[in-house]
Amino acid sequence: MAKFMDVHHGMKGITAEQLAAAHKADQAIEREEGVHFERAWADPKSGTVYCLSEAPSAEAVKKVHAKAGHPVAEVHAVPLSV
Amino acid sequence: MAKFMDVHHGMKGITAEQLAAAHKADQAIEREEGVHFERAWADPKSGTVYCLSEAPSAEAVKKVHAKAGHPVAEVHAVPLSV
Repeated sequence: MAKFMDVHHGMKGITAEQLAAAHKADQAIEREEGVHFERAWADPKSGTVYCLSEAPSAEAVKKVHAKAGHPVAEVHAVPLSV
Repeated sequence: MAKFMDVHHGMKGITAEQLAAAHKADQAIEREEGVHFERAWADPKSGTVYCLSEAPSAEAVKKVHAKAGHPVAEVHAVPLSV
């Protein structure tokens, strides 16, 4: 297991309710891929959403997001944190 | 005060020690601008570092990072989080 930060673009105007719903949709199916989504932060102005997860691979993160209906192209392993 | 996520690029090969030192350098002077750096995550492979802060403005985040020796161009307000 490792930590990943993924970045969604094009989510301009996202609301707190939409962010919470997307996060719940991820968490509802994340176990299928052995992923756990911990946190997410959104900038409705630029349409950027950052998700922090613990997962076996970047592919697993992508699979969960895709199944939940919000595919992501940019997933970075972040092995270091403070 | 608001939450911000800033993104550094070009930090390929960053070590845990370097990340911790950079975070400490920020925290040592952050009060001058009313900023608080909460967390940071790094991907040594792609050279990307994400910093989460609480600050009065994106400009204040930029000032602290620049003074501490690691200027950043990309700072997003992230008013929404889960």
